[in-house]
Amino acid sequence: MEDLNLTTAETKAIGNSIERSRTALMSQFVRVRALTTALAMPLSDADASAQSMPDASPAKWHLAHTTWFFESFVLQEFVSGYVPYDTAFSYLFNSYYEGKGERIARHMRGLLTRPSLEEVLQYREHVDAAIVAAAASMSNEVMELVKLGCNHEQQHQELLITDVLHLFYQNPLLPAAYSTEPLNNEGRPQPMAWVKIDGGMKVLGHGGEGFSFDCERPRHSVWLPPYLLADRLVTNHEWLAFINSGGYEKSEYWLSDGWAWVQQNQIRAPLYWIYSEGEGWPHRFGLAGPEKLALTAPVSHICFYEADAYARWAGARLPTEAEWENAAAGYVPEQGVFLDDALSVRPMPASAGDGLKQLFGDLWEWTGSAFLPHPGFRPEAGAVGEYNGKFMSGQFVLKGGSCATPRNHIRASYRNFFYPHQRWQFTGVRLAKDI
Amino acid sequence: MEDLNLTTAETKAIGNSIERSRTALMSQFVRVRALTTALAMPLSDADASAQSMPDASPAKWHLAHTTWFFESFVLQEFVSGYVPYDTAFSYLFNSYYEGKGERIARHMRGLLTRPSLEEVLQYREHVDAAIVAAAASMSNEVMELVKLGCNHEQQHQELLITDVLHLFYQNPLLPAAYSTEPLNNEGRPQPMAWVKIDGGMKVLGHGGEGFSFDCERPRHSVWLPPYLLADRLVTNHEWLAFINSGGYEKSEYWLSDGWAWVQQNQIRAPLYWIYSEGEGWPHRFGLAGPEKLALTAPVSHICFYEADAYARWAGARLPTEAEWENAAAGYVPEQGVFLDDALSVRPMPASAGDGLKQLFGDLWEWTGSAFLPHPGFRPEAGAVGEYNGKFMSGQFVLKGGSCATPRNHIRASYRNFFYPHQRWQFTGVRLAKDI
Amino acid sequence: MEDLNLTTAETKAIGNSIERSRTALMSQFVRVRALTTALAMPLSDADASAQSMPDASPAKWHLAHTTWFFESFVLQEFVSGYVPYDTAFSYLFNSYYEGKGERIARHMRGLLTRPSLEEVLQYREHVDAAIVAAAASMSNEVMELVKLGCNHEQQHQELLITDVLHLFYQNPLLPAAYSTEPLNNEGRPQPMAWVKIDGGMKVLGHGGEGFSFDCERPRHSVWLPPYLLADRLVTNHEWLAFINSGGYEKSEYWLSDGWAWVQQNQIRAPLYWIYSEGEGWPHRFGLAGPEKLALTAPVSHICFYEADAYARWAGARLPTEAEWENAAAGYVPEQGVFLDDALSVRPMPASAGDGLKQLFGDLWEWTGSAFLPHPGFRPEAGAVGEYNGKFMSGQFVLKGGSCATPRNHIRASYRNFFYPHQRWQFTGVRLAKDI
Amino acid sequence: MEDLNLTTAETKAIGNSIERSRTALMSQFVRVRALTTALAMPLSDADASAQSMPDASPAKWHLAHTTWFFESFVLQEFVSGYVPYDTAFSYLFNSYYEGKGERIARHMRGLLTRPSLEEVLQYREHVDAAIVAAAASMSNEVMELVKLGCNHEQQHQELLITDVLHLFYQNPLLPAAYSTEPLNNEGRPQPMAWVKIDGGMKVLGHGGEGFSFDCERPRHSVWLPPYLLADRLVTNHEWLAFINSGGYEKSEYWLSDGWAWVQQNQIRAPLYWIYSEGEGWPHRFGLAGPEKLALTAPVSHICFYEADAYARWAGARLPTEAEWENAAAGYVPEQGVFLDDALSVRPMPASAGDGLKQLFGDLWEWTGSAFLPHPGFRPEAGAVGEYNGKFMSGQFVLKGGSCATPRNHIRASYRNFFYPHQRWQFTGVRLAKDI
Repeated sequence: MEDLNLTTAETKAIGNSIERSRTALMSQFVRVRALTTALAMPLSDADASAQSMPDASPAKWHLAHTTWFFESFVLQEFVSGYVPYDTAFSYLFNSYYEGKGERIARHMRGLLTRPSLEEVLQYREHVDAAIVAAAASMSNEVMELVKLGCNHEQQHQELLITDVLHLFYQNPLLPAAYSTEPLNNEGRPQPMAWVKIDGGMKVLGHGGEGFSFDCERPRHSVWLPPYLLADRLVTNHEWLAFINSGGYEKSEYWLSDGWAWVQQNQIRAPLYWIYSEGEGWPHRFGLAGPEKLALTAPVSHICFYEADAYARWAGARLPTEAEWENAAAGYVPEQGVFLDDALSVRPMPASAGDGLKQLFGDLWEWTGSAFLPHPGFRPEAGAVGEYNGKFMSGQFVLKGGSCATPRNHIRASYRNFFYPHQRWQFTGVRLAKDI
Repeated sequence: MEDLNLTTAETKAIGNSIERSRTALMSQFVRVRALTTALAMPLSDADASAQSMPDASPAKWHLAHTTWFFESFVLQEFVSGYVPYDTAFSYLFNSYYEGKGERIARHMRGLLTRPSLEEVLQYREHVDAAIVAAAASMSNEVMELVKLGCNHEQQHQELLITDVLHLFYQNPLLPAAYSTEPLNNEGRPQPMAWVKIDGGMKVLGHGGEGFSFDCERPRHSVWLPPYLLADRLVTNHEWLAFINSGGYEKSEYWLSDGWAWVQQNQIRAPLYWIYSEGEGWPHRFGLAGPEKLALTAPVSHICFYEADAYARWAGARLPTEAEWENAAAGYVPEQGVFLDDALSVRPMPASAGDGLKQLFGDLWEWTGSAFLPHPGFRPEAGAVGEYNGKFMSGQFVLKGGSCATPRNHIRASYRNFFYPHQRWQFTGVRLAKDI
Repeated sequence: MEDLNLTTAETKAIGNSIERSRTALMSQFVRVRALTTALAMPLSDADASAQSMPDASPAKWHLAHTTWFFESFVLQEFVSGYVPYDTAFSYLFNSYYEGKGERIARHMRGLLTRPSLEEVLQYREHVDAAIVAAAASMSNEVMELVKLGCNHEQQHQELLITDVLHLFYQNPLLPAAYSTEPLNNEGRPQPMAWVKIDGGMKVLGHGGEGFSFDCERPRHSVWLPPYLLADRLVTNHEWLAFINSGGYEKSEYWLSDGWAWVQQNQIRAPLYWIYSEGEGWPHRFGLAGPEKLALTAPVSHICFYEADAYARWAGARLPTEAEWENAAAGYVPEQGVFLDDALSVRPMPASAGDGLKQLFGDLWEWTGSAFLPHPGFRPEAGAVGEYNGKFMSGQFVLKGGSCATPRNHIRASYRNFFYPHQRWQFTGVRLAKDI
Repeated sequence: MEDLNLTTAETKAIGNSIERSRTALMSQFVRVRALTTALAMPLSDADASAQSMPDASPAKWHLAHTTWFFESFVLQEFVSGYVPYDTAFSYLFNSYYEGKGERIARHMRGLLTRPSLEEVLQYREHVDAAIVAAAASMSNEVMELVKLGCNHEQQHQELLITDVLHLFYQNPLLPAAYSTEPLNNEGRPQPMAWVKIDGGMKVLGHGGEGFSFDCERPRHSVWLPPYLLADRLVTNHEWLAFINSGGYEKSEYWLSDGWAWVQQNQIRAPLYWIYSEGEGWPHRFGLAGPEKLALTAPVSHICFYEADAYARWAGARLPTEAEWENAAAGYVPEQGVFLDDALSVRPMPASAGDGLKQLFGDLWEWTGSAFLPHPGFRPEAGAVGEYNGKFMSGQFVLKGGSCATPRNHIRASYRNFFYPHQRWQFTGVRLAKDI
């Protein structure tokens, strides 16, 4: 940069461009922060404080941790004179950043009845004000961190919702977390169709201008044989056929670890399905409380083992990450069923018509690919480098986002990852097949 | 009764006596219920909903369970036309009465974020009103059940306090639960003295008029050799000497199960003592938050294994239940350090003077006796028969009540019981010796 | 002693008496040692090395540990110049004597495939020879230790048998450990009768001349009300009635901890009963392999929880240790069904006639008494003081010995003890009742 | 086949060729079977029966299971009139083939003290004779199954050795399993060098004539960027540098799951390294007992987490499976350090000279690739289809074989797989790097 001789107009143009992105970033920041707070509004102090399992966190913790992220990585690092809101909060609200010091054991988060939800919301306001105040003087590097913080917070919005859903499911009262959105969850059943995708040398991963997490990078070449991809997600109706043909009772469909999981946990149906003696599973539990099982909606809250077993039962397989990402390349992510407001969300039946449907939104789609580094992967420098790379063992990649993913948060290159037994996220399955 | 020919005056006198006890019972009922509610006042909805370990319960659960006890055993059984406040509550708030149907798994109580604390307090008001309304027509049998309910609720008052203390200790902020009461916790150290107690044939257990739990009955004869009893509880100062002489590091002082417990949990001091590198344990955590360790106060929050090891180290032993009860026979329980209000409670240094001190109040005293039936024991009929008898294996008897026991709740024949590793109650140790 | 003036004749008489007891002791030593070795003869090297659960030990370990006891407490302490057979053996074969140094973790004993059974038998021969060689010069104190070692080894004979039984039960081949002894296990069913025992002041515990373990001492006074004792043990036939009336399915019969144990382990019958679809439990597994369930034989391999539940179901209770010991005072222990040879042992049906039957031998009888110190108890000095006293929490007393107890090993004051869930020993139940 | 018109000479030639391969197969069968038996010779009945952890199996079980494989998949399926040697053996010695019925729980294998080692060796002889007798009439299909059985047995030869090593390590006597082979384990240290490997489109997987497991197939195209590969394995000397620079104490080198594993198990060095206060780790335990740590020998018995952490510490990474397989394409597997006899095996220092060394033999090399299906993978039909496919989750691929792998058993396409925490196999690490 230092060798360039810019005209005044050029300098000004660049300045304007930076200012425009600064404004856009602050606009994004304010919107993201407001949605998280809105998601907490229907929750009581107790709702927001409880932790239903070690994998989940209290809503209050999500509210505070995302705030701590901005305070710790932006304000304390780059805003001179910034005084931490409360020095104890780093211990309480650091998630797993070893580089940022000791933290409370994960499974103990539900015992933090103090600070209260009210106090955490005040903490949010304090940090919000400080970020906005600092915005004018932020360098590009800092703006990148704010952008990372916004994307980080969007991830926690989804976790907040799924953790609340899991918590409320433990309560025999089966309370509703959010008002029902006015969407109709039933539709005309459509037979699944196979879409043929050409093979060849493909360039995948993220390489463009927009935001991406480190694990999506770099762009890299992959050779793909041609393959078939289901045009939509597997439905509840189809899953019932799997159950009724003994899907959960025959070892032949299951990976060895999956079969052990089924037997140890006596799994008989997807998570949140509600059994009725003599009726099977007429209902499921959702963010709006118990509801009729929508047969044409995609089956959700299944783990990798279940997705894989279903595919084997169906004479198919799961797509690889590369196959999925390649197929999704031509599709626009923004039009799907995503999280927009603090309302009850749920996956919707596939629309009619040809071509691939439900790629983005509705449900995260399990792939048959382990979460491992792309060729040439380099983690970010510093503590934010712990963001993704250190989780690269034992987990599988999910693609496409879900109805609980904030709209605009997703990309074809986006890599979500969970252990093969985890199923409290909005997860589903799309089949693939060799040609 | 029906064969007696009573004069009118006699009949009236009996009626008056019943009415007087009815009035007294309702007065007791109102006072007990009010104190429980007062104990919950400093707690937030979140504080009242969390469960720090399977042994403990959320404060909200105590508030609701004690209410359910009256609703289930009195209102639903004996008040015709009474409609349960909420049919789900029996599942939520039954503790362990198999005779009263299924209930939520004990370790899941902390996930009941609904009903809220506010709703539980309304439930309390509803049941209180119904009991008071029914009072006028209660038979003696029903009044006995109300009396049992009051005593049951007093037990839960103590549990509520100790469970909150344990919960707050898990929070790195170490919050205070209650305001400090104005008592001075320091005093002049007094050397422990041995009091000689005569042996002989003693009649122990409860047999009089007043209330007692079934496990305190019947009166029964016990032959006791003479023995020595320490005139006061072991102090924090004395316990430090035990620690400093390697008390927690030498297997020779410990029961085999106790030594395994020490090593597995890496125990080095009583519960709630706060370690400082280089300083030892200058502070402890209490209901008013962290405070200086009061050297002349009795050591508290020790388990049976610790009490027993200390006694062996000191060349003494724990008293048996019979020895303790016999020695306490001549003492008045009401004057000790007990729970009166929703204030921070703590055990106090022994007063000066001869004779046995601190028998009642301050701290529950571990005995060397297993919690087993008295000769001739018969549990109550019906579901309330599950109250004590079914816990008669593996636990040890504690006597005398503590600073967290409601005043007037205790008797010499009172039998508290906990497993030998449990120490989150206000427990202490008094030594005994053969002559 | 030093003030006594003895005549020569008196001195000689005392000397003769010591020599006679020396000879008797060596005779006992040789017989005890030979029986243990005989018990190992039917076992292969692999049989003798495996450990079926942490509570059990390999037969080889019993063979070596009992030998180590003599080597460690007698030869190394009192025989000058004695060189340990193998310095590694103390680490391998010390059971739990903290005073004798570190030892291998209990649950790892089954991984000691070396030294072999053959080598352990050589170790036995070496130590046997050294003890016999040292006999002539043993002081009274040392002879007491040898006597303790013999009694210790008899206890391990019983454990060896029960541990082999448990091991072979894990093998789907259900092998027989020992040849069947020619005893007939069937008899005419006799209705149980109650024997009335007078109450009063009783003196219990051990105080006489013969050998006793420290926990049986001292003699002490106990006041007993009068009581009823069943004249014989509960039979398999009676236990089937308990099962068929829902004994294992109704919580009302069970202690709280016992009910949790039943549900967690899905207990439906005594240990070693073999279920057949449609037939119930027509067989059981024993030391001679599977055999027909003898209906008139006493029910065996039940734990305290089961014994207690049965008693409650039968409208009775378990006897206390004092009640049992008092009742047994007039009976001779030696005539019962005991272990004499390396043959299959089993409990036998009660004989006909009046009075208490099966008190000694057949099966250990669960009492309702916790294993706690007798008044005035003092453990032995030194490492042998770890023998009994450190186990005085959480366990219940059993009385009378079993068919696997070596004949002559038992006394009325003998105190065996196990945790309430343990049932791999030859344990049974005799009922008691208040009058 | 039935449409072909062959001349007599052609028919005879084909027949000759089949006979030649039949002879070769029987020769292979006899050699493989003999080596397994030889490996058991130094073991006692007890050694051969014990199971040191659920991941491992008793040697006797390996001997019997490999025999059951031939009996179950060949003799019972294809030899008319074959009567199973013992009908109980299928329950005892089936490993995990759900299609072959119920089997004993894996962690209970160490309790099968019967049948004895001697009886299992007789079982082996019986089945060997039956296979040899049936050889003359075996179809090609059956010969393929015998070939599979031989390769299966070779895998269990390696497991037998590593399981014995693990068992003997639990014994404080640290016994030697096998005589030392006369190989010299020290050599001149050579600095590691990087070998540049060209990228491009590669065809990997197995597709040729010889034997392969289903998971190695089919041949498939992979696009590889160019990369650097270390010319030899990491040495013990280099690993000590990792330890001394805090490798096991700094979270920054570790995957999140790996760091949890380090802390939970307090890992400080590779498995079998023997710590000496003040000296570090001067010795390690091997098949010949404790021995001096050979500094120039490759580090062995490390898990994936350790291999990955070391690579990060070294500024490198693990090779992918494709990178490894591509690089190994031009090398001959047969010349390395492999298992030939029942002697103690160990990895050897790298030889001098340019190019890649130690690719085959010495140690299995961890790759950064999850064990997942190759594109187009199809498991074998029938129960043998459970061989590999059902383990395709959570495990990582290892390549190249080890000193405990039977010579001739390995190929470049060979895929071994273990969970990332497992390290009782002969595992090592070779570094890779992006260009």
